[in-house]
Amino acid sequence: MFSTMQDGSLTIARILEQGSGPHGASAQVITWTGEGSRRRTYADVGRRAAQLAHALRGLGVTGDQRVGTFMWNNAEHLEAYLAVPAMGAVLHTLNIRLFPEQLVYVVNHAEDEVVVVDTTLLPLFGKLLPELKTVRHVVVAGGGAAGLEAPQGVQVHDYEELLAAQPIEFDWPELDERSAAAMCYTSGTTANPKGVVYSHRSIYLHSMQVCMTDGMALSQADRALAVVPMFHAMSWGLPYAAFMVGASIVMPDRFLQPGPLVEMTAAERPTMAAAVPTIWQGVLQHLATDPHDVSSLREVVVGGAACPPSLMRTFEEEYGIPVLHAWGMTETSPLGSVARPPAGATGEQLWKYRASQGRLPAGVRGRLVGDDGQVLPWDGESVGELEVRGPWIAAAYYGDDDPEKFHDGWLRTGDVGHISPEGFLQLTDRAKDVIKSGGEWISSVDLENKVMGHPAVAEAMVIGVPDEKWSERPLVAVVLRDGQQADAAELRDFLADSVAKWQLPEYWTFIAEAPKTSVGKFDKKRLRKQHADGGLDVTRLD
Amino acid sequence: MFSTMQDGSLTIARILEQGSGPHGASAQVITWTGEGSRRRTYADVGRRAAQLAHALRGLGVTGDQRVGTFMWNNAEHLEAYLAVPAMGAVLHTLNIRLFPEQLVYVVNHAEDEVVVVDTTLLPLFGKLLPELKTVRHVVVAGGGAAGLEAPQGVQVHDYEELLAAQPIEFDWPELDERSAAAMCYTSGTTANPKGVVYSHRSIYLHSMQVCMTDGMALSQADRALAVVPMFHAMSWGLPYAAFMVGASIVMPDRFLQPGPLVEMTAAERPTMAAAVPTIWQGVLQHLATDPHDVSSLREVVVGGAACPPSLMRTFEEEYGIPVLHAWGMTETSPLGSVARPPAGATGEQLWKYRASQGRLPAGVRGRLVGDDGQVLPWDGESVGELEVRGPWIAAAYYGDDDPEKFHDGWLRTGDVGHISPEGFLQLTDRAKDVIKSGGEWISSVDLENKVMGHPAVAEAMVIGVPDEKWSERPLVAVVLRDGQQADAAELRDFLADSVAKWQLPEYWTFIAEAPKTSVGKFDKKRLRKQHADGGLDVTRLD
Repeated sequence: MFSTMQDGSLTIARILEQGSGPHGASAQVITWTGEGSRRRTYADVGRRAAQLAHALRGLGVTGDQRVGTFMWNNAEHLEAYLAVPAMGAVLHTLNIRLFPEQLVYVVNHAEDEVVVVDTTLLPLFGKLLPELKTVRHVVVAGGGAAGLEAPQGVQVHDYEELLAAQPIEFDWPELDERSAAAMCYTSGTTANPKGVVYSHRSIYLHSMQVCMTDGMALSQADRALAVVPMFHAMSWGLPYAAFMVGASIVMPDRFLQPGPLVEMTAAERPTMAAAVPTIWQGVLQHLATDPHDVSSLREVVVGGAACPPSLMRTFEEEYGIPVLHAWGMTETSPLGSVARPPAGATGEQLWKYRASQGRLPAGVRGRLVGDDGQVLPWDGESVGELEVRGPWIAAAYYGDDDPEKFHDGWLRTGDVGHISPEGFLQLTDRAKDVIKSGGEWISSVDLENKVMGHPAVAEAMVIGVPDEKWSERPLVAVVLRDGQQADAAELRDFLADSVAKWQLPEYWTFIAEAPKTSVGKFDKKRLRKQHADGGLDVTRLD
Repeated sequence: MFSTMQDGSLTIARILEQGSGPHGASAQVITWTGEGSRRRTYADVGRRAAQLAHALRGLGVTGDQRVGTFMWNNAEHLEAYLAVPAMGAVLHTLNIRLFPEQLVYVVNHAEDEVVVVDTTLLPLFGKLLPELKTVRHVVVAGGGAAGLEAPQGVQVHDYEELLAAQPIEFDWPELDERSAAAMCYTSGTTANPKGVVYSHRSIYLHSMQVCMTDGMALSQADRALAVVPMFHAMSWGLPYAAFMVGASIVMPDRFLQPGPLVEMTAAERPTMAAAVPTIWQGVLQHLATDPHDVSSLREVVVGGAACPPSLMRTFEEEYGIPVLHAWGMTETSPLGSVARPPAGATGEQLWKYRASQGRLPAGVRGRLVGDDGQVLPWDGESVGELEVRGPWIAAAYYGDDDPEKFHDGWLRTGDVGHISPEGFLQLTDRAKDVIKSGGEWISSVDLENKVMGHPAVAEAMVIGVPDEKWSERPLVAVVLRDGQQADAAELRDFLADSVAKWQLPEYWTFIAEAPKTSVGKFDKKRLRKQHADGGLDVTRLD
């Protein structure tokens, strides 16, 4: 028996029509210029998206060809977000922060035919261009293309000139909702970046989730400040969600430093904002010495990395702004979970909920899988790798089989933690960093935080090292504070109060400096290599 | 190019798992008993839904067979809502208020194999049973089956006994999201009722819409009082939406009178509630003489008929409860539009937005179609019939072609009105009641309300009557208040200030009593017949 309901394709064109139609006059994209803002109504964005689509057709973009963007968060990037998928092509947002060789790889791998580039990013893009094998057209937005040397066979266009003569309506094609709409590569640290190809369906459903009251609660009444880059997991879905419900959106362009962020908040009065913890840390530090009115913010969304509880408390207690902790990744569109406490939670219990990664919504099924593949209970204690599935979760990478990451319809997130009976996810480690000791898992992050609680310790890194009896045991590498002293036995005694006995590390080493990655995270791969090469002087306690 | 995303079927089983899993301990279905409440956690509902599914399998329910419900809003009805579609069968909610011959028609038309019946409804159901051709099993919930005489070949079961020995887990099958989940017949006044068959997909998407901040904003923190019956357009989607996000739900069972509604509100402190205007009118009248604490309500949803602005104002001004005006119909799942004013609207402008039928969300595309089939602009003035399409809009009736109602992928709603450039829908009439005068449409409802503004007039009905020059012109049938006098010329003069000259009616008649339907609405069909039969004494003004 079939239902008598319409199919009602879930497509970007529908989002485009809704934002530019009924919300066309009231909603705006507001782009920061460094000194103030430029504004464009969603009706104008809709007209210009139609012009862009005509222009791209004119450049020969047909079918599902890829159109790259090498852009900051701004109005023109929003136009490309809407026009490219709605016309049936595929938007490829290029992460300007990848290493040049990775950028070249992803453009060639996705076979981008056209790239839209911000004029301010031309110095960076120009260096890549000679290596890009499939790019036929470069469209420069926001100013001239001065200084760009185009290789043979590549044409350079000015965005505004290209749009100027085009019709302001476009007959958006009917598309299969499962067809490709946009793609985004994750920045692998060990291998080549991997591409995730979002469908119209996945983006549409994800946008609804962003606007659900238990999601980010985005509504027509909002003005969203999208600090998280549009080349980073689709700016967490804000541009599409805002267009779907007619929320205005504030775009910082290239002004991502705390000073301008605070200034644009005071000037444009966004009601919500989304960014990684380090951005918010900088904003708080800036506000402490250079006060601005940020009272328009009803909520601030933090994700991309675990948010320090102190950051959440400062926002709430000093500025009256609740922080919504969210978890997700490029492969999850990215909204996986948000930490809205259950009704009625108060006090420290409330903070515990809010510091967790939150609850997975109906659209994201989750399970914890232990070391030997068994599915673990949601008891708030059993620790395993989180696996997820659902209509906005990736099933594969583009043209790059990775059976390690996907199995039985589940995505292995690489995140390790536990889930409470009421569904609150608490991540404790990355799977590759967890220590697998006698069938039990020990969180390296948890041990690090506890060792760093000792007054003599500046930094502590924990890795798993081979152990005959337990298969793996934790090794703690300690950087002492200048002029402070502590030995392994003292530090272990210090842990005894807060760490289960079987988790207490027996391997200790003292190092002058912690190896770190280019973005300042502990480089455990390097520490492991030092250990394997015999470069560490390790003490073993009994 | 295909996306790399998972399909992630949108099914009722997912809603069931989400509500009974992470929200299982905290969310409850609370059923009013007349003297208090009985409570059941969603975890229990989930276990009992599994038991019900096993029991139905045991009765031979396989594939997409139909399981009818003849029930009030209560915990057992919620269990059937979840179990029947999740197991792959089709839930058929029977409107207990249809005429007996209509009920017999719909059960036979849908070919229901099993019907679950509330014990309190057995007297009504028992009369139908001998006429039901496909029903093999009757399951009686909430008490014994005393007094029910089962025809040959029909078995009667006790709901609790049937569930008792069943396993509390069920391996819910993987279903195509486009397969049938539930059906509901609309009560046609002129022809047989028509069946709408909702899919898993349409119900899932509709549930998300109910939980969107610009929808009904239902969230985990809510306790929804579902006054609108579960046999009436799926209780406006509240049961599924509540289960999807873990909101608790308060069910009034058969206690739909203002007294018990007020009592259960004071006792169970729901945060939102949904019902037709007449229910709320009764509640307000009751509260005026028998005050209760209803302050727990953050919002009240009104739909099913246009809500008098006075009702909205009383709720808000006397009780501090905003009323959310909503529009929809069985064929639209039913959430079509809700009247959330744009951010920043104030004063009378705000009230104008709130009194409208509101905005269609991204999931519901709308257009206005004029008399000769042309699509009209959204200018807030052009009046036409509203047509809609989208993923939770019906494409057809079940086993009953009705090309009049569906064309080119659009549903003709039968509602007539205008839409403002910002998308606010203002309905003015039913299509069959609108007066088509010289290519322009005149709202019968609008004229009625204006004539009833005259102090001598008790009631006024307006119908279109044939006119040689204009094709149709309005005829006003007036019931004067006892002891009051007014003639046609005086009444027309009274309208002249507020009605465009070309709309001023020339045909008038005075009647002793307005013909009404069984539910107290003006029966215009009967008035038209009286006019056609020459039974009205009509005055024609020049």
